[in-house]
Amino acid sequence: MSTAAPILLTPGPLTTSARTRQALLQDWGSWDERFNRLTASVCERLLTIVNGAESHHCVPLQGSGTFAVEAAIGTLVPRDGKVLVLINGAYGKRLAAICAVLGRTFCTLETAEDQPCDAAEVEQRLLADPAISHVALIHCETGTGLLNPLEPIAEVVARHGKRLIIDAMSSFGALPIDARRVPFEALIAASGKCLEGVPGMGFVLAHKASLAAAAGNSHSLAMDLHDQQAYLARTGQWRFTPPTHVVAALHEALLQYQEQGGQPARHRRYTDNCQVLLDELARLGLRSFLPAAIQAPIIVTVHAPQDPRYDFKTLYERVKAKGFILYPGKLTEVDTFRVGCIGDVSRHDLQAAARAIGEALNEMDVTPLQIPGVATPTMNTHLRA
Amino acid sequence: MSTAAPILLTPGPLTTSARTRQALLQDWGSWDERFNRLTASVCERLLTIVNGAESHHCVPLQGSGTFAVEAAIGTLVPRDGKVLVLINGAYGKRLAAICAVLGRTFCTLETAEDQPCDAAEVEQRLLADPAISHVALIHCETGTGLLNPLEPIAEVVARHGKRLIIDAMSSFGALPIDARRVPFEALIAASGKCLEGVPGMGFVLAHKASLAAAAGNSHSLAMDLHDQQAYLARTGQWRFTPPTHVVAALHEALLQYQEQGGQPARHRRYTDNCQVLLDELARLGLRSFLPAAIQAPIIVTVHAPQDPRYDFKTLYERVKAKGFILYPGKLTEVDTFRVGCIGDVSRHDLQAAARAIGEALNEMDVTPLQIPGVATPTMNTHLRA
Repeated sequence: MSTAAPILLTPGPLTTSARTRQALLQDWGSWDERFNRLTASVCERLLTIVNGAESHHCVPLQGSGTFAVEAAIGTLVPRDGKVLVLINGAYGKRLAAICAVLGRTFCTLETAEDQPCDAAEVEQRLLADPAISHVALIHCETGTGLLNPLEPIAEVVARHGKRLIIDAMSSFGALPIDARRVPFEALIAASGKCLEGVPGMGFVLAHKASLAAAAGNSHSLAMDLHDQQAYLARTGQWRFTPPTHVVAALHEALLQYQEQGGQPARHRRYTDNCQVLLDELARLGLRSFLPAAIQAPIIVTVHAPQDPRYDFKTLYERVKAKGFILYPGKLTEVDTFRVGCIGDVSRHDLQAAARAIGEALNEMDVTPLQIPGVATPTMNTHLRA
Repeated sequence: MSTAAPILLTPGPLTTSARTRQALLQDWGSWDERFNRLTASVCERLLTIVNGAESHHCVPLQGSGTFAVEAAIGTLVPRDGKVLVLINGAYGKRLAAICAVLGRTFCTLETAEDQPCDAAEVEQRLLADPAISHVALIHCETGTGLLNPLEPIAEVVARHGKRLIIDAMSSFGALPIDARRVPFEALIAASGKCLEGVPGMGFVLAHKASLAAAAGNSHSLAMDLHDQQAYLARTGQWRFTPPTHVVAALHEALLQYQEQGGQPARHRRYTDNCQVLLDELARLGLRSFLPAAIQAPIIVTVHAPQDPRYDFKTLYERVKAKGFILYPGKLTEVDTFRVGCIGDVSRHDLQAAARAIGEALNEMDVTPLQIPGVATPTMNTHLRA
C-alpha cells in the first residue's frame, strides 16, 4: 500500500479526485468574465444544495473555514447583539473565542463531548435570557465527530424569534439541510470538506434581509460579508484577489458532486465508509468514542489502545508508510485518535486503512487491543441512515 | 495568437510556470510533517530574500494580500497607536480604510497619483505630530505602477524612532529591499505576485521583538499574527487549515526563483519586460501615465486613446481573443488601462501583447492614437535600472 501520495483520512484537507486537481492547472484573470461566471456558478450551486436560492445569498470568502465563521459573526451579529454558543467540543469553543475577540456579548451552553446539544435546554436558556439575539451551533463537531440535532434546535430558535448561525463546516453537502424547513441566519462551510474541493476558501449562506441590514457591523474590512456581497452583486467579482485556482477546483468538484447524485449520494457513500470503518475497527478491538446514535458519518474518534507500547506518533508514521494519513485526537481528557470518512475515498479505502492500522499495531506489539472487561457494542451498532 | 489559456498581463493573479502549477496536483495533510517542512522552507526562503532571518519572523496567512495587510495593522499597531498613512493611489487609500474599520487612529499624507511620497514631507508630519507611532507606505502603488522612495522614507521614520509598515505587495521579490539597511516593523506581500505563485495566501515579515510584544492587540481571531506565529513556532503548523495546494505551489515557485538568480534576476527580467512594453506602446502612439523615473517595472498605466470609437471593454475582448488579458485602469479622474509586466512572461510575450493591442485598436478603427500636440517623451525615456 506504500504510495507516493498517501490517502488523507483527515477531515479537510482531504483526498480530492484527479479531475478536481486537474482543474487547478489553469491560471485565471480575476477580472475576467469567464472567472466571474465560475464564481457565480459556484455560488448558485452551493445555494441549491440547501434549497436556499430564494432566501439566502452565498458570500464566498478567502481563507480557511474559520475566517468565514469569524466573518459571519462579525457581519451578522450587531454590536449590541448577544450570542448563545452551544458547545460540546473544540469548534464550539473556537466559536466562543471568536465572539470574545470580536467583543460580541455571548453566553455558552456547554455539554460533555459525547453529549449532543439539547433543544429543550436551549429553550430554557432563551426563556431565561431575553437579551440573547443569536444562537450558534456546530452541526457536526469535528473535534469528535458528534452530530448535533440541528432541526429541533432550529425550531426552538425560530419559535422564540431568535436567529440561528450554523457552523456546518464538516457537514455541508453530506448531511441534509433544507433552508425551507430549517430557518437560519447564516450557514458556514468551506471548499475543502464534504464538497471535496481543495482548501483555501470558505463561504457563508446568509439570509438576504439580514445581510442587507448588516452594513457597518463588521470589525474587519476584509471579512465584511455585507461589502463582499454588495461588490459581488455589482461587479460579479470578489472584492479582493480571489484564490482563483481554489475556486476553479471547487467548481469542478461541484460538477462531480451533482453528477454523482448530490447530497443523498454523498451521504450514502460517507455513511457506508463510516460503517465499514467502525466495523473493521471493532474487529481489531478498537473502541469508538461516540455511541453510534450520535456519530456523524464524517470522522470517527477512536480510543487509543491502553497499552504502554502504544503511542500515536509511531502509529501515525507506520500507517502513513502503508499509504494512509490519520488525524490526531482533539480531546483533552481522553487519549484518542481520529479517522476521517470523507473525501474522494470509498469503502475499499477504509477497509484497507483499517487493515493498515491493525498491521501497524501488530508491528508495535500492541496486543491485545481489547480493554479487558469492556465490550464493544457501540462499534457493532449501525449508524442511523 | 488565440489560445485556450491567455497570458495574464495582470498584477496578480498572473501567469505562472507549468512547473509551479504541477505542484498543485498533490493533496497534503495539514498536520503532516512533510507539509510542516514545506511551510518552514517557504518562510525561510521569504526571509532570505530581504536578509531578514535574524531580525524578523515570517508569518504566513490564509487569504489575499489585503487580509495580510489588515492582519499586520491589527496585530502590530497597538490600540493606542497612531498611523501616518502615505497615499498616492488606490492601495494607500485601502490601507487608510483598514485603519478606520479597525478603529486605529490615523492621519494621512496624500499626494497626486503621479507624485511619489516625499521623505521630507514625512519628516515634517512626524515633527508636527508626536502621537504618530507608525508610518505605512505602499512601496509600489499597483493602482498606477508608481514606485515610492522606500529607503529615504525608512531612514526618516527610523531617525524619529517611529515604526515602518511596508505594503510591498507588488514589489517583494523583484525590487531590492534589505532588512539590514531598511528598518521595518512589518513588510507585507502575497503568494501570487512577483514570486509567481498562485493567489491564496499572504505573509508578513514582522520584526521579532514587536511581534512578541503584540499579544492581545488583534481585532480578529483568524488574523492575529502574534498567535499565528506562536502556534507555528510551537507546532510547525498553521493555526487554522492552510491552503495546502497554494503553499506547495509557492514553494515550487520559490525554488525556481532561486534557480533563476533570485531578486536581481527577477528585477532584470521585469525591467526588460517593462522597457519593451513602454517602447512598443510608444511606437503605437500610446502614452504612459507615469514618467519613467517613478515607473516601477511591475505594471504600466496607459492613457486611453482619446477617440470616441475607443472603449476598454472592446479593446479587452479583442486583445483577449489574441491571447492576452489586460487590466482595467484604477484612476477616477483619467481614463486609462493597465498592462502588467510580471509573471512567468518574457520580453517576447510583451512584444506580442503590444502587437495585439495595436491590431485590436486598428480593428476598432481607433486612429490616430497620438493625441494631437502631445509628444510622448516619457515613453522613450529609459527606466532606471
